[in-house]
Amino acid sequence: MNILRINLSARQSQIEPPPASWNHLGGRGLLARILLDEVPATCDPLGPENKLVFAPGLLVGHMLSSCDRISVGAKSPLTGGIKESNAGGRTGLQLTHLGLKALIVEGQLDSWSVLHLSPDGVRFDPADDLLGLGVYAAAPQLLARYGDKVAIALIGPGGEQCLLAAGIQNIDKDRVPARINARGGIGAVMGSKRIKAIVIDASAGQKPPIADMDAFRTAQKIFNQSLLAQPQTKSYADYGTAAMTMMCNHYGALPTRNFSAGRFEGAEKISGETLRDELLRRGGQSNTTHACMAGCTIRCSNVYGGEDGKEIVSPLEYETIGLMGSNLGIDSLDTIARMNAIVNDLGLDSIEIGAALGVAAEAGLLTYGDDQRALALCEEIRTGTALGRLLGNGATTTGRELGVARIPAVKGQAISAYDPRAIKGTGVTYATSPQGADHTAGLTIRAQVDHLDPAGQAELSRKAQVNMAGYDTLGACIFAGFGFAASPESIRDLLNARYGWQVDTAILQTLGEETLKAEVEFNRRAGFTAQDDRLPEWLLREPLPPHNAVFDVPDDDLDALFA
Amino acid sequence: MNILRINLSARQSQIEPPPASWNHLGGRGLLARILLDEVPATCDPLGPENKLVFAPGLLVGHMLSSCDRISVGAKSPLTGGIKESNAGGRTGLQLTHLGLKALIVEGQLDSWSVLHLSPDGVRFDPADDLLGLGVYAAAPQLLARYGDKVAIALIGPGGEQCLLAAGIQNIDKDRVPARINARGGIGAVMGSKRIKAIVIDASAGQKPPIADMDAFRTAQKIFNQSLLAQPQTKSYADYGTAAMTMMCNHYGALPTRNFSAGRFEGAEKISGETLRDELLRRGGQSNTTHACMAGCTIRCSNVYGGEDGKEIVSPLEYETIGLMGSNLGIDSLDTIARMNAIVNDLGLDSIEIGAALGVAAEAGLLTYGDDQRALALCEEIRTGTALGRLLGNGATTTGRELGVARIPAVKGQAISAYDPRAIKGTGVTYATSPQGADHTAGLTIRAQVDHLDPAGQAELSRKAQVNMAGYDTLGACIFAGFGFAASPESIRDLLNARYGWQVDTAILQTLGEETLKAEVEFNRRAGFTAQDDRLPEWLLREPLPPHNAVFDVPDDDLDALFA
Repeated sequence: MNILRINLSARQSQIEPPPASWNHLGGRGLLARILLDEVPATCDPLGPENKLVFAPGLLVGHMLSSCDRISVGAKSPLTGGIKESNAGGRTGLQLTHLGLKALIVEGQLDSWSVLHLSPDGVRFDPADDLLGLGVYAAAPQLLARYGDKVAIALIGPGGEQCLLAAGIQNIDKDRVPARINARGGIGAVMGSKRIKAIVIDASAGQKPPIADMDAFRTAQKIFNQSLLAQPQTKSYADYGTAAMTMMCNHYGALPTRNFSAGRFEGAEKISGETLRDELLRRGGQSNTTHACMAGCTIRCSNVYGGEDGKEIVSPLEYETIGLMGSNLGIDSLDTIARMNAIVNDLGLDSIEIGAALGVAAEAGLLTYGDDQRALALCEEIRTGTALGRLLGNGATTTGRELGVARIPAVKGQAISAYDPRAIKGTGVTYATSPQGADHTAGLTIRAQVDHLDPAGQAELSRKAQVNMAGYDTLGACIFAGFGFAASPESIRDLLNARYGWQVDTAILQTLGEETLKAEVEFNRRAGFTAQDDRLPEWLLREPLPPHNAVFDVPDDDLDALFA
Repeated sequence: MNILRINLSARQSQIEPPPASWNHLGGRGLLARILLDEVPATCDPLGPENKLVFAPGLLVGHMLSSCDRISVGAKSPLTGGIKESNAGGRTGLQLTHLGLKALIVEGQLDSWSVLHLSPDGVRFDPADDLLGLGVYAAAPQLLARYGDKVAIALIGPGGEQCLLAAGIQNIDKDRVPARINARGGIGAVMGSKRIKAIVIDASAGQKPPIADMDAFRTAQKIFNQSLLAQPQTKSYADYGTAAMTMMCNHYGALPTRNFSAGRFEGAEKISGETLRDELLRRGGQSNTTHACMAGCTIRCSNVYGGEDGKEIVSPLEYETIGLMGSNLGIDSLDTIARMNAIVNDLGLDSIEIGAALGVAAEAGLLTYGDDQRALALCEEIRTGTALGRLLGNGATTTGRELGVARIPAVKGQAISAYDPRAIKGTGVTYATSPQGADHTAGLTIRAQVDHLDPAGQAELSRKAQVNMAGYDTLGACIFAGFGFAASPESIRDLLNARYGWQVDTAILQTLGEETLKAEVEFNRRAGFTAQDDRLPEWLLREPLPPHNAVFDVPDDDLDALFA
């Protein structure tokens, strides 16, 4: 497996063998290594020195259930630190079919282009006709031009505007461009390089080699059985991530009206149960279960159709429900789905935009529960007005500019849909993760602990962060982790069979720790200190109803976490 | 001399003797010590943990020429680090007449108030009728209410909105509220505490004691003679700070069109010479020379009248001419004066707003040279729209939100009117000063060196920074420094006579070094590292016409400066 390096300023590309120190890495771990080795940590994230790196995880390429994720990374314009954001879709799979371990994009183009990757090399095609188009309009044009077998990673108007909440959308197996590398403003980095889309045509490529096919198949079988045996697998297939709504409401951790409460009176109306009932009743294009990647046995995703059965958005996830629903006092799934469709089309992170709208509501720009105004504000971002750009740059910019003290963000990135005062282990993750506030960096809600007790939360978070950094390096979805956790030997066996290695079951922790260490080092070089590993002051001061908890994990615990 | 501590949350106040470690300090040096001792460096600058501190310099209280300045400090919401901003006017003088070494304001009020200070104590008067008023409308109302002998420090709508470019306006000896503690968002801190104005009535107070009056008068005479003998004293009396326009243009350091050039084709039209000729021709209220503090012999200030002789603004300073004139491609002093009057009324820093407008121009919100649009954008800030708030939050927020890469700022604060590529010693000051980019922290333009040669600039800047921190601790204006530099023994003699001390002529350096050390330590605790002591990347990359210089002082020189 090779590295494809594209120098945009020179419009040149070359295939390189990876240096030895990159060989055992993939996905998030490889990104961390590449960024640490090649990107000056103090560079302007939207300038020519930053690099945009795509790296499929170590297990990507074989349609293993939930294991074909694509990690995209760069220095983040949102946090100023290192960033990895992973997504489903087909981008990861097809990069491996081109024999690529990573794609490194450096420099900046002088005109907007589509990068076309195939076994024949790299082409720079003009993209002027696609500028300003949302991803739902741009993707079909790209498919018509390049054929429907390609993978596509593209940005919307948000990325074109270099908005700090912009992500990169990937088409899924059904060619819907809604699998987003959402967080950290990665789409703005792509926009700063004037790349509207990357098209990957691997139809003349080939599957990555497997060192020991029999052993691989055996390990795959064990992993699948383990995955199917987990109760969460069934629950995610039935309810998707929206199952979290009632769980978080129960724990008093559901973001409500800009994180001013942890329970929402309209929670049931935006719950996974209601979502499922409605989709089953509405029928048509609606679907309660859907796979974002070919081969996934969980199929946690969904297609959200309106009363007429026509698709409004796919998928509708818990984080969007929490941030664009309860966080805005909105109890209509239809409204949330419509808001989601708009920000998807713009190529923006629904968590960051939901949090920004919550802050805007606190500043008086929106009344909590005003569905029409919330929708209009999402559309405002498309127009590029000062207000639109404000919101599109996320919660921190919005709050800072509007003079709102209660900004739910760490390292400039919005907190996701678990209030850290009620799920304190996840609060530790928000505070200390080199990625900024991000539940996927180490969610602790399923741990059997008292989530309100500050004791032991740092260690709980540390373990979760190491595991997640490990899974992100494999290219495994957070839900694949349920299966791997129950059969850790299957990770060992899959890696050994795939690569001819001889690793043991400690490999997940080893990869996770190495990854975190590199990320922390990048941030240190960028100027981060212990003072950045803190939740905002108001979360330590303002009690959260109904438990009236504040975040009270001691600073010393936070500082010791990666020490 | 005592400390007056006002706890806003409890609506209580008390007079305290200063701890021993504060006794030898005043002004900026005392602020640094107080903030380091009392304010958690990681606190929310606009939250209740931040403190707003007023400290007259060590020599304030005696109407010594150019030595009655008031330093105001807090943790800055603009830079996230320590901030001191000093101004003329009568606030410093009257605080000393109340026997105060410093005023420490802590906590937050629950309703907008005027703080009234007198020998009878502290009163909290309602301020609701003053809300939304510009300082030119609010100050006369306060004078009518409290008598025209009081000193007033107040905020405008900018501070009320907690805009990050908001300062605190002080009335001068003629009761004009245009002596601004401009930089670092100090006015937003006052706004976050819901203080519209602080009124100081020292009419029943008394002058601060002098240990040896004869020695003091002798030293004062020597200082005055030295000051009057400096050629700059005459030049500042004739042309004011506007004399800098042609000097900077000559050096190729005049900010032009968002710092894209160092010479401006319209420089002569906005020069000190033109300013003087016009004011002499127009007459009426126009005045080419004006003292901001009683007793000043330099009188560098001015009253800028229109064609009809009616005052448009007072004063009109070089920094405003550079940032709101050449930086925006505007060559009309009348327009610059009108813009200045608007931002003064709003209580905003004209440097920060000028830089923000330059960034906005680069983003297409303004055409360079469009006077009417520039005036309209200044007025827009008053309205509190998203665009208005954007600009009012300064260059970094504006640039970050509009996606402009070329933001002229360090530590979040706009660079003042000396391009650091052409005056490299001042560039070093911008990069390394704990105050963020601020020429008053260590201007080097008058040094007899090659300003384009990177060698030796760090040492030049270090000396200037130490001296300025020393003068700011004395309460001495930057121009008093010309006199003190020529007779350093007069500082020693004034301090010894005033306080009964026995310091030697090294006292200025001692005070300066102690001050900087405390400030650097505060910033370290707030999370600053060497990576924050850098100019933005584009200043290292983009050559500045006409010399085509880039900023090339080595990072090692910057890092060694305070080591």
